[in-house]
Amino acid sequence: MDSTIKVSLCQMKVIDDKDINIEKAIKMIETSAKNNADVVILPEMFNCPYDNSKFRAYAENLVNGKTIESISKAAREFKVHIIAGSIPELAEEKLYNTCFAIDDNGNTIGRHRKVHLFDVNIPGKIEFRESDMLAPGNDITVVDIGCCKIGIAICYDVRFPELFRLMALKGAQMIVIPAAFNMTTGPLHWELLMRARAVDNQVFIAAVSPARNENANYVAYGNSMVVDPFAEVLVRLGGEEDILYSNIDLSKLTKVRNELPLLKHRREDIYEVYEK
Amino acid sequence: MDSTIKVSLCQMKVIDDKDINIEKAIKMIETSAKNNADVVILPEMFNCPYDNSKFRAYAENLVNGKTIESISKAAREFKVHIIAGSIPELAEEKLYNTCFAIDDNGNTIGRHRKVHLFDVNIPGKIEFRESDMLAPGNDITVVDIGCCKIGIAICYDVRFPELFRLMALKGAQMIVIPAAFNMTTGPLHWELLMRARAVDNQVFIAAVSPARNENANYVAYGNSMVVDPFAEVLVRLGGEEDILYSNIDLSKLTKVRNELPLLKHRREDIYEVYEK
Repeated sequence: MDSTIKVSLCQMKVIDDKDINIEKAIKMIETSAKNNADVVILPEMFNCPYDNSKFRAYAENLVNGKTIESISKAAREFKVHIIAGSIPELAEEKLYNTCFAIDDNGNTIGRHRKVHLFDVNIPGKIEFRESDMLAPGNDITVVDIGCCKIGIAICYDVRFPELFRLMALKGAQMIVIPAAFNMTTGPLHWELLMRARAVDNQVFIAAVSPARNENANYVAYGNSMVVDPFAEVLVRLGGEEDILYSNIDLSKLTKVRNELPLLKHRREDIYEVYEK
Repeated sequence: MDSTIKVSLCQMKVIDDKDINIEKAIKMIETSAKNNADVVILPEMFNCPYDNSKFRAYAENLVNGKTIESISKAAREFKVHIIAGSIPELAEEKLYNTCFAIDDNGNTIGRHRKVHLFDVNIPGKIEFRESDMLAPGNDITVVDIGCCKIGIAICYDVRFPELFRLMALKGAQMIVIPAAFNMTTGPLHWELLMRARAVDNQVFIAAVSPARNENANYVAYGNSMVVDPFAEVLVRLGGEEDILYSNIDLSKLTKVRNELPLLKHRREDIYEVYEK
């Protein structure tokens, strides 16, 4: 049964203080719940500055981690599903850029470790090598929260159409993208990529960035947005800290896929994309 | 060796008269050659109105067809490579929407038959069923003209990222898209799709539409454009009949692919897209 769900995108300003970041996230989750959000989404690295030199110190494992424990408690208390952006996750001596999906009972129902690490060097503009510090995830992630199947990709993952196609083929109706584009790639490609993934796969896209923090080493672009399956940007923020709400009418998927049956028109007799 | 090539995009007004359409195409090829174009590109269905009721009457086979014969002669005479948009092709009793690639000696060096047929029904906006009249092609097409490897896709093909990924993996540096979007899908998705295919695959895109003919049953959007591998629209037309030129610096591919190594960062250990 198609239904409408209310999502909330928390474009929070992340600073160099884990406790304050967690408090901010909890406060935004509470506000979202009071505004009747069903699903609350946090940005990439919401508990930690996006900075290779910080990831290890901020990292937590799932079993004994203050961040996800606090978020789970909030999910249970405020009765919301939470796609918890990402945090540096420590597991078997490795660090990952990991998104935890938590249901409205506070249970962790899924985990996406960023699959594509951001190693770029655009001289004079942006240089970053995540692989110096982080290990890549190896899974394609779609979680079922009952009212909606949600695919999860983190930031640089958005540049790889194969991943999105496979999430759509696994039944994702909305794909959530915690992400921190920067002031070079943001203006160039942020909106383009979010709209492209939506229109190709006829899914909703909810992309959530940290707010722009001009004092940080890495300045996030902001511009959190929700895009519908026909590539229309439904709502969008600028660089400011704020919560963005959107009512997502899942029946739009059915309508768009009937009018323009892209997934059906794929020529699987000629090409195939598959998960190994 | 990377080099610069000059392409010309002939946004011609197609009318319900084959001879006049061919004459117009030849004239535009001649003008392009005089302006030092290396590669001349014609639009989708450049010899025929985009109309199911016309395709059969305008169709030609390769061996005995006035259109491609005339275009080949022009290629030889004016010493240009031609990506000849498309025409209705008749082969073994079937009709195809086919692009012929012709080298500067007038030889046909490749052929792309539209792989994805345009069967859509957006109530009150646009309804079209190519499959009522046309058969689909079954090949992924990349031609080598010496100075450049060119992938070819026709119109609705652009909505299928798998096809573009496979052309890029086959070495396409520029992908030419003869296409006739309409006044609904054009404003919504034309620029988005052209830029998305460019940025994902880090190739040049040259999309060539017929000019807008308000008297036709099917009104083409126009807006022929060249997009660079970083998704920048280099040049673009509106609805008018005109020739659009662009100097394509193929070394940009190398630069962009070094700075942001997307093709290298694909996780082929997790997913794969392949040609059957």
